[in-house]
Amino acid sequence: MYRSHNCGELRATHSNETVTLAGWVQGIRDKGFMVYVDLRDRYGLTQLYFDEEQTPKEILEKAQKLGREFVIQVTGKVQERASKNPNIPTGDIEVLVSELKVLNNSKTPPFTIEDSTDGGDDLRMKYRYLDIRRNPVKNSLIFRHKVAQETRNYLSSEGFIEVETPYLIKSTPEGARDFVVPSRMNEGQFYALPQSPQTFKQLLMVGGMDKYFQIVKCFRDEDLRADRQPEFTQIDCEMAFVEQEDILNTFEGLTRHLLKEINGVDVDKFPRILYDDAMRLYGNDKPDIRFGMQFGELNEVAQHKDFNVFNSAELVVGIAVPGGNSYTRKDIDKLIDWVKRPQVGALGMVYCRCNDDGTFKSSVDKFYDQDDLAKWAEVTGAKAGDLICVLSGNTDKVRAQLSALRMELAERLGLRKPDEFAPLWVMDFPLLEWDEDTERYHAMHHPFTSPKPGQLELLDSKPGEVKANAYDLVLNGNEIGGGSIRIHDKATQAIMLKHLGFSEEEARAQFGFLMDAFEYGAPPHGGIAFGLDRLVAILGGQETIRDFIAFPKNNSGRDVMIDAPAPIDKEQLEELNLKLSL
Amino acid sequence: MYRSHNCGELRATHSNETVTLAGWVQGIRDKGFMVYVDLRDRYGLTQLYFDEEQTPKEILEKAQKLGREFVIQVTGKVQERASKNPNIPTGDIEVLVSELKVLNNSKTPPFTIEDSTDGGDDLRMKYRYLDIRRNPVKNSLIFRHKVAQETRNYLSSEGFIEVETPYLIKSTPEGARDFVVPSRMNEGQFYALPQSPQTFKQLLMVGGMDKYFQIVKCFRDEDLRADRQPEFTQIDCEMAFVEQEDILNTFEGLTRHLLKEINGVDVDKFPRILYDDAMRLYGNDKPDIRFGMQFGELNEVAQHKDFNVFNSAELVVGIAVPGGNSYTRKDIDKLIDWVKRPQVGALGMVYCRCNDDGTFKSSVDKFYDQDDLAKWAEVTGAKAGDLICVLSGNTDKVRAQLSALRMELAERLGLRKPDEFAPLWVMDFPLLEWDEDTERYHAMHHPFTSPKPGQLELLDSKPGEVKANAYDLVLNGNEIGGGSIRIHDKATQAIMLKHLGFSEEEARAQFGFLMDAFEYGAPPHGGIAFGLDRLVAILGGQETIRDFIAFPKNNSGRDVMIDAPAPIDKEQLEELNLKLSL
Repeated sequence: MYRSHNCGELRATHSNETVTLAGWVQGIRDKGFMVYVDLRDRYGLTQLYFDEEQTPKEILEKAQKLGREFVIQVTGKVQERASKNPNIPTGDIEVLVSELKVLNNSKTPPFTIEDSTDGGDDLRMKYRYLDIRRNPVKNSLIFRHKVAQETRNYLSSEGFIEVETPYLIKSTPEGARDFVVPSRMNEGQFYALPQSPQTFKQLLMVGGMDKYFQIVKCFRDEDLRADRQPEFTQIDCEMAFVEQEDILNTFEGLTRHLLKEINGVDVDKFPRILYDDAMRLYGNDKPDIRFGMQFGELNEVAQHKDFNVFNSAELVVGIAVPGGNSYTRKDIDKLIDWVKRPQVGALGMVYCRCNDDGTFKSSVDKFYDQDDLAKWAEVTGAKAGDLICVLSGNTDKVRAQLSALRMELAERLGLRKPDEFAPLWVMDFPLLEWDEDTERYHAMHHPFTSPKPGQLELLDSKPGEVKANAYDLVLNGNEIGGGSIRIHDKATQAIMLKHLGFSEEEARAQFGFLMDAFEYGAPPHGGIAFGLDRLVAILGGQETIRDFIAFPKNNSGRDVMIDAPAPIDKEQLEELNLKLSL
Repeated sequence: MYRSHNCGELRATHSNETVTLAGWVQGIRDKGFMVYVDLRDRYGLTQLYFDEEQTPKEILEKAQKLGREFVIQVTGKVQERASKNPNIPTGDIEVLVSELKVLNNSKTPPFTIEDSTDGGDDLRMKYRYLDIRRNPVKNSLIFRHKVAQETRNYLSSEGFIEVETPYLIKSTPEGARDFVVPSRMNEGQFYALPQSPQTFKQLLMVGGMDKYFQIVKCFRDEDLRADRQPEFTQIDCEMAFVEQEDILNTFEGLTRHLLKEINGVDVDKFPRILYDDAMRLYGNDKPDIRFGMQFGELNEVAQHKDFNVFNSAELVVGIAVPGGNSYTRKDIDKLIDWVKRPQVGALGMVYCRCNDDGTFKSSVDKFYDQDDLAKWAEVTGAKAGDLICVLSGNTDKVRAQLSALRMELAERLGLRKPDEFAPLWVMDFPLLEWDEDTERYHAMHHPFTSPKPGQLELLDSKPGEVKANAYDLVLNGNEIGGGSIRIHDKATQAIMLKHLGFSEEEARAQFGFLMDAFEYGAPPHGGIAFGLDRLVAILGGQETIRDFIAFPKNNSGRDVMIDAPAPIDKEQLEELNLKLSL
């Protein structure tokens, strides 16, 4: 062992003990006749002290030559400091060094190893091993470990078995794009990396495994948006002989356990909302319910006046901004500019001030009198002092726009508190969604999701209206988990695949093994998968996942530290029977 | 919930309770007026009882139509059996069924779902989901979960942090062949799947993470020998600021914990043996020390007589087979045939009977008298009643041959007891090993292994003699873990890579990021990796790993259940800028 103690554990009670520490030089203050060195390791900082009266000369000189991030080992005596530092746990003591060994030198790091670094994102990623020395990143990784460990302990105690499913599987073009892996031993053939262990966990249910989970890497070759990674981690779960209610209760239990153990927060029974209601009240299938500002649909009270913009709209919908009447005309103009940005895409915004004296003043006073506006206030729940913001147009678009505005205003009003946790189940998702590009229906969740009982017949007549036994768990406006009750009989699965545009041959080639399995006594089953990266970030009070991943990739899917991907040898390509066609 | 209890928990104390069970029909005994059904789930078997006096007619008839592996749900009253079955935990009771629902039908399974099945390996793999319903496979998977969970709990309690390292990394031709993953977004470039997270865990040490572990999938595109898988699982561990002794103690602690918690076995401090001694005494770097039969080197006592076979041999070496003098001439001839099989490859075998009266009778009496043979007995530790088996030839070959014979004889003698556990550290492995094919030295462990202090200079003069700070943990004759102290400075790493035949450019291209990291304050560090598949199999008292893997691949790297790998769409290839060159 290179140390008797770590750099976070010495206290005044250790005074006069001889200790050995090892770590990194965080900083040096050299006053000539005395030298202070802050020594850092994973556990904290300890002040080292050298002076010309008590320290052997060659050691003092050696100390004076240390640089930032040098790795050293010291032995010395713990003593109480003259001036204590109440800001760190070891602030009462210092170590008077009698032996000093440089274990390794360091070049000057390209950015400061401080909680607030001067390093930009690109530099931090290139030298991620230095970035990880910083508390915010180090603590995020330790936090992630704790969440994973608590998850495993909870699910194990509930009788779940973690089963490792394979990574080298088969490409299934449905869903996102697969990463593929050429097989050398099977010429011209490819494995695919799993987008999720979906079919395998279902086969485990057919195999009687009953309660399965796995914390597992998944892969999607998508064009990366900000904060998406080509490889990501799921808490993947499945249960047999259960109904939707059992799954909701079980994983509400897991989430409540994590909130309690990790965040020290007790949460009551999670509220539930239907997908249709979530869209109507929040314009969004993952509403943040830490705050109100529910949508009020104004068609009845705002249409059929002379205001053509509203009259021609499919939906007129508003929200009440608490205290928004204090906004100046300039503030409101800026808000209108904000909703007109291409990222939001509204054509304009109507507003109505709710004055303290109970009167209203809207931007469309020409068309609406006080009685009309009083109805707006009633529908949106606006009180005196609030501002009503109203958008109109195509239902789907206007809901998305108003949802964006709602989130933006809540952020500005400080209503999205990182230490407040508001989980919510969103239920009864549509089974299918229309895809504009391919002009056909896709599975909203995945092709194995079961329609709600009795709705299978609707698939032919009104496919868009069929609801699924599918649910999402939303936390603070983020989807942290999603799942469904699965189809467990071959006939229903065949109907489903047919409606998704699979020919019988295609269905057979891609999912034959699952359809076969359903013929040998498949039990009713369902499950859920949590996105661990996002779950951890949200529990940690953050919105971006990158610092909760040890070695993330950038938006081009590159690891800039190791410089991957990279060209490979010609011999490697030949062995795989491949040629580049650039 | 489809059930109030599972099929393993009902006892006589539950009598008269109304319960609901769900599971699979294991078997039916239909006596016309009464029907017995064995219902199975993950937790056990429960006998269901129907009779014409107590069961509604339509339910009795339904029961008579059930088939094996049908999935059913029943409600009924628990009652004590007339004739109890002491062989199963639920053997005291049965459930008199009042409601029966068929949840799913089943075709007749292609093999019996019994502990001893009539299904061959190929069939079992194709229908693995049915195979998993069998107790031996199901219990192996649950056992694996327990081992992984205990490992995580132990290491977490010791301050280790599980950090997920990336799967999409960079190809490094050193070592085994990589599986590669074409990158669509980075034309003509490839990721590689990790053969181990080696460099990443070292970077975590540079990053100050101090105590890391991860249970992680690794990938090797090797021509598969029996019982090897292209994807396998490691318990991967690394520590900083430690010496070899610290690592040995820490992971001896883990292994002892597993033996205690999983197997209920207390093991004393693990013995240690030097690599050179292991080779000399057992002909093997992973000796099974559950039994003796150590090698005796006979050069001194057997050479320089007139027996040319021995005189011309580099090594003459023997073992004493306990009680082997009882073998008939025919037995011994068979043994000689066994060592001459191509898999072993000996040219012949000399033997010497140790008679009860203290005399000897050897197959080479022409050359050796009783005094000579007494010395053979002394060197091999043979006692009256034993048989001395002697092989000779090239040292490496003859050691491997005699080691094979030793293991075979121990197996036949029942000395390899699956419930006995004999761990052993093998220390001081050579740094390099000569590769016949490429005619150069390769890293025996990997290129990051540190030579023993002071031996770096030997690299030029006697590379084959340099020993490494490398160690294996052996359990019952299987390597379950291996590791080393790593190089942590750029200069030594550069020397090492040069000796492994890397040009400076190649070293830079492949390991530049690691060499760079070593310049920013890399701490001394080292680690170990356990092969989880094998560890679990051995703790489970088995020698083959396949049933401890949920969905294994066959010797061609195929998953015969999902039929992967498989051809992919032309469009997929085009997107990846690839062409097949078949």
